Amino acid sequence: MADTTESNVDVLIIGAGPAGLMAATWLSHLTSLPGTALKVRIIDKRSTKIFSGQADGLQCRSLEIFDSLGFADRVWKEAYHMIEICMWNPGSDGVIRRSDRIPDTIVGLSRFQQIVLHQGRIERFFLDNIKKYSSGQISVERGVLPEELAIQDEGEFPVRVKLRYLTEEEAATPQVRAGSKDAATDGLFRSNLLGEDDEDSLISQSKARQGKSEVVNAKYVIGCDGARSWTRRALGPEFELRGEATDFIWGVMDIIPITNFPDIRMRCAIHSAENGSLMVIPRENKLVRLYIQLKEVTPDASGRADRSKITPELIFEAAKRILRPYEIDYEYCDWWTAYQIGQRIAPSFSAKNRIFLAGDAVHTHSPKAGQGMNVSIQDSFNLGWKVGLVAKGICKPSILSTYQSERRRVAQDLIEFDQKFAKLFSGRPAKDVMDAEGVSMEEFKDAFLKGNLFASGLSVDYGPSNLVVKAGDPAELGDRSETSRLLEGIHPIGEEEFAAKQALASGLQVGMRFNSFKVLNQACARPWHFQERLRADGRFRVVLFAGNMLSATQKERVDNFCENLGATESFLRRATPPGQKIDSVVEVLTIHSSPRTETELLRDFPEILHPFDKKTGWDYDKVFVDDVSYHEGYGDAYRNHGVDKERGCVVAVRPDQYVGWIGELEDFEALGRYFEGILVF
Amino acid sequence: MADTTESNVDVLIIGAGPAGLMAATWLSHLTSLPGTALKVRIIDKRSTKIFSGQADGLQCRSLEIFDSLGFADRVWKEAYHMIEICMWNPGSDGVIRRSDRIPDTIVGLSRFQQIVLHQGRIERFFLDNIKKYSSGQISVERGVLPEELAIQDEGEFPVRVKLRYLTEEEAATPQVRAGSKDAATDGLFRSNLLGEDDEDSLISQSKARQGKSEVVNAKYVIGCDGARSWTRRALGPEFELRGEATDFIWGVMDIIPITNFPDIRMRCAIHSAENGSLMVIPRENKLVRLYIQLKEVTPDASGRADRSKITPELIFEAAKRILRPYEIDYEYCDWWTAYQIGQRIAPSFSAKNRIFLAGDAVHTHSPKAGQGMNVSIQDSFNLGWKVGLVAKGICKPSILSTYQSERRRVAQDLIEFDQKFAKLFSGRPAKDVMDAEGVSMEEFKDAFLKGNLFASGLSVDYGPSNLVVKAGDPAELGDRSETSRLLEGIHPIGEEEFAAKQALASGLQVGMRFNSFKVLNQACARPWHFQERLRADGRFRVVLFAGNMLSATQKERVDNFCENLGATESFLRRATPPGQKIDSVVEVLTIHSSPRTETELLRDFPEILHPFDKKTGWDYDKVFVDDVSYHEGYGDAYRNHGVDKERGCVVAVRPDQYVGWIGELEDFEALGRYFEGILVF
Repeated sequence: MADTTESNVDVLIIGAGPAGLMAATWLSHLTSLPGTALKVRIIDKRSTKIFSGQADGLQCRSLEIFDSLGFADRVWKEAYHMIEICMWNPGSDGVIRRSDRIPDTIVGLSRFQQIVLHQGRIERFFLDNIKKYSSGQISVERGVLPEELAIQDEGEFPVRVKLRYLTEEEAATPQVRAGSKDAATDGLFRSNLLGEDDEDSLISQSKARQGKSEVVNAKYVIGCDGARSWTRRALGPEFELRGEATDFIWGVMDIIPITNFPDIRMRCAIHSAENGSLMVIPRENKLVRLYIQLKEVTPDASGRADRSKITPELIFEAAKRILRPYEIDYEYCDWWTAYQIGQRIAPSFSAKNRIFLAGDAVHTHSPKAGQGMNVSIQDSFNLGWKVGLVAKGICKPSILSTYQSERRRVAQDLIEFDQKFAKLFSGRPAKDVMDAEGVSMEEFKDAFLKGNLFASGLSVDYGPSNLVVKAGDPAELGDRSETSRLLEGIHPIGEEEFAAKQALASGLQVGMRFNSFKVLNQACARPWHFQERLRADGRFRVVLFAGNMLSATQKERVDNFCENLGATESFLRRATPPGQKIDSVVEVLTIHSSPRTETELLRDFPEILHPFDKKTGWDYDKVFVDDVSYHEGYGDAYRNHGVDKERGCVVAVRPDQYVGWIGELEDFEALGRYFEGILVF
Repeated sequence: MADTTESNVDVLIIGAGPAGLMAATWLSHLTSLPGTALKVRIIDKRSTKIFSGQADGLQCRSLEIFDSLGFADRVWKEAYHMIEICMWNPGSDGVIRRSDRIPDTIVGLSRFQQIVLHQGRIERFFLDNIKKYSSGQISVERGVLPEELAIQDEGEFPVRVKLRYLTEEEAATPQVRAGSKDAATDGLFRSNLLGEDDEDSLISQSKARQGKSEVVNAKYVIGCDGARSWTRRALGPEFELRGEATDFIWGVMDIIPITNFPDIRMRCAIHSAENGSLMVIPRENKLVRLYIQLKEVTPDASGRADRSKITPELIFEAAKRILRPYEIDYEYCDWWTAYQIGQRIAPSFSAKNRIFLAGDAVHTHSPKAGQGMNVSIQDSFNLGWKVGLVAKGICKPSILSTYQSERRRVAQDLIEFDQKFAKLFSGRPAKDVMDAEGVSMEEFKDAFLKGNLFASGLSVDYGPSNLVVKAGDPAELGDRSETSRLLEGIHPIGEEEFAAKQALASGLQVGMRFNSFKVLNQACARPWHFQERLRADGRFRVVLFAGNMLSATQKERVDNFCENLGATESFLRRATPPGQKIDSVVEVLTIHSSPRTETELLRDFPEILHPFDKKTGWDYDKVFVDDVSYHEGYGDAYRNHGVDKERGCVVAVRPDQYVGWIGELEDFEALGRYFEGILVF
């Protein structure tokens, strides 16, 4: 036992897939906040990071998140952009033909659209970002496996995790171990048609050779170790995924197609008359992913399909049948796999708010809607700052319960969506209106259109809590669990008053992400999508819609608000640690609606809106104006946000860009209470 | 002499500033072309690359070039964006006030606007790009100095250059040698107020210690070694810069200002009543560059100002006086220098089309218009592909003479512009219309507005040659030298016929860069700025404006054109080396004007427009449509290019995006002659 060392960390992340990397990225970005630096570790049992294939659709919201982290541009540049969906259905002659074209992303929803890029590249961008923001302090420790997990009731570091170090050979993925350069030869190694994972045998091997182990005592543990999560299993049977598998088996192939099918570079949903369905997802580097329904393969009595029957030849033959009369062939296959559609969810996403589970560890579903990686990333984008700010002593631990209420609800919605969608897509098209067993293609199109909003990640609407001050029942608007039932907004005001506050910015829903329009920097006239100023740096923000600064009445309201902000006892002063800049925990940003050229930053705006620094002078990056730009049109932000151009309003924004509170300029006290409910003063 | 080795290279570049790096970047990008790989070396006598300060305004055209190389996004993201220019002049009371606001970049000129970023970052992007595209084959050899230069009349490698290797200490810049961390303490070390450079003493030192030397025999040498170019001097007195210095002395400071001047984050041109002029150029990282007229310092009898008088204090005091009644101060100065305005140009830009000079080596002027780095980069963007394609045996050596005719003309225009601008900016503002000695502020504004077009780099219009088939006198439209007099278009047709061809695309001027509008990829509906498809890969392009593909008449015209293209004897086939893809030297791109959803790539467009490959199938990236996009508006390319939507036209584009030829779809033979005049078949 001489080989076992022991140490403390603030946060231990288990698993370095997208969910784990997102958590580590958040914690890296908190480095710029005041307070002691966090000690963060992230481990992964595998020695290599990049697989062929793997989920790779990226929704609008994921791109907005990447933008807030600073690397959306890299993703956008390399990715295939999905613009249009073509629906193909059998005509009255049973031959498939294009019946509809719809935009892949709903127009006007976001400044980004859905794109496709290999997961390996996304992980590369996360790793580069972690290195940059943590100044190299956080890096993935590979070939490290958790072996034991326990939560103590007390102490600063209550979670005890025993880690075990693998040899290079042990840590190699099955894919790499097979010694195959052609990933297409071993496409099922991560399929859900396979059985259990191999942690136990890896640990026995390590023990047998007296391998190195280590004990880590953590304040918080985040388990992002995938659908067969060791962390989840270690928490006991009450965390087991619940749900059902369906009888639908699908194959997946990434090929460079040689075909006369006209829409091979469009996203296509193809229902053949009798041969099953197929989805076409074009990708970067001439690749196309085909999702192919396998009608020949059915689950056995145990409910699990026999994987030995499934070969790329079988899958591709199915694709050829569905695409008839068009021809398709390929010379190059990058990857293939098969999976059985099923939807499962964990009953709880956290143990005592000390151990959290995110991503595939707590919800699984079919991959076709391109949700997997996105929802996983968004899980830990929701969680990372909460854990980090609580660990740093900036936020109250009570905010941690919102993780389950907010994200488990999203997972519930996702599973419901996936069930409906899978059924419609895997069903045979109805021959006519009398064909009750068939799927109506009108209904399918309708589901697709509605699904597009859901799939964008932009319809997420978090329920009431101390982080989200809105009307309604926390459980009903959360995940309907006991955890969310216990959450309550700290403002015991009536439904009517909530509705009145929301009406101040009808286009900025409390609980939803801050939608973005272009505004101009007052000092230099540069247009910005306002969301670009809501960087993921762990700060809360107060957005002051200052209204018409040229009206004396309004100017007085703004001056009063700013006087309150600047007062010694204001939440802003109290939230700022001694000796730190006034914007270090809560940043105040202003958008006014007067003409840019008739206003001047220094002359017209109170100092607290553009704080002075002895060494660097005035801050020129905090006041924006809703006005026309020379080169990039007019964002019309006030109108789009539904904010009165004369009177404006005040909006509090969480570090993850979700709107937490809306009020009048006179509601300063209520705004203070919002922050009192969250921040440690 | 045992220490002297000898070797051959295709191209030797002397100097690794922006001009030299651009040349090396071009040669890296030619790696993907057929033919033998080029051996390219680039040397620089200095051991370090980054200085504080240095030219750093980037024009629209430079950004378009960076985009064609693949790194405009990195520049755009990091840079300060210049949006508006504010003009400040004395009012009738003699106190300065803002008299005008104008957009810094003319609206609609380009998809980019003028920005500011430190030269060191631009050089970093060039270096990364060279590494990527040359697969690490080309890298800057630092601490290497040319010692002797001679051109032989014959042989494959007619230029003999002797190189000398410096020690690390010798190669250190004066700035670094001074041991100063605060660059502001030695701001004049590269000023034009200093005398000669130190090559001779460095070479003697190296000789004295019997340092290493080497002989390189080159096909071509490109001298990019700055205003005091060793290469230029080695070519003899007939290459000496000619021109005059003025009496205007200006200081430059990069500071983080602490000021109540309202427009400190705008570009400002400030004329004070009596204290001289000042230009404000905001920069990244809160920095502001001030160009400050020094009325106290005047040149002595020799025409050169005494540098010992010039200190940052003296410069800043002048700035304070000009800015009165506003106050300005600073805690942090990043860099300072001073210069004497003067405009000089070399009589010739090349020796025997074997040695070329580019950038500051052949033209110097004042830095305020932000032209220096841009024109230097554009010089070697014009030169690099010509030298590379001739060295590879793809182009005829006769194209090399166009470098001087095209770029020396730009330098002449630049100097004329700078003389006019410097005089207007350094002059005292007129008190009233009777004040004939003063500068009219109306005239200044007018010059500024006109200057903005020139300064964008987008008004460049190359004269006739084998590369540019247009009407006019090659000398008059070139640099008026003997070199350009000898250039002649290879199409002896009349003025009227030229005019008729130009009228086929009235918005695409022959001799100017291919202006860009958004079009959609026919196969996947993705919007692209068409210029994004004109990558700097060394290929010529034929852009087929196919017109209305739904009209049977027009379809027939397109089919005929394509039949000609595909014929064995066509220039396209003859330009393609045996065994290479049909698009390897000349790429055909199509933009049609029929509705996207009523046309299909495979059904409606001849195969040669989307060539088939046995391994990767059809090419889906060559046919575009002028139609409305879902998310990015309507480019309206036909209307903007002035092309008939029914009949279209054909445009030949050079590897540097300049339009070389315009004709009807029936002018296939003339198009063939254009390429015969350029390419080695």
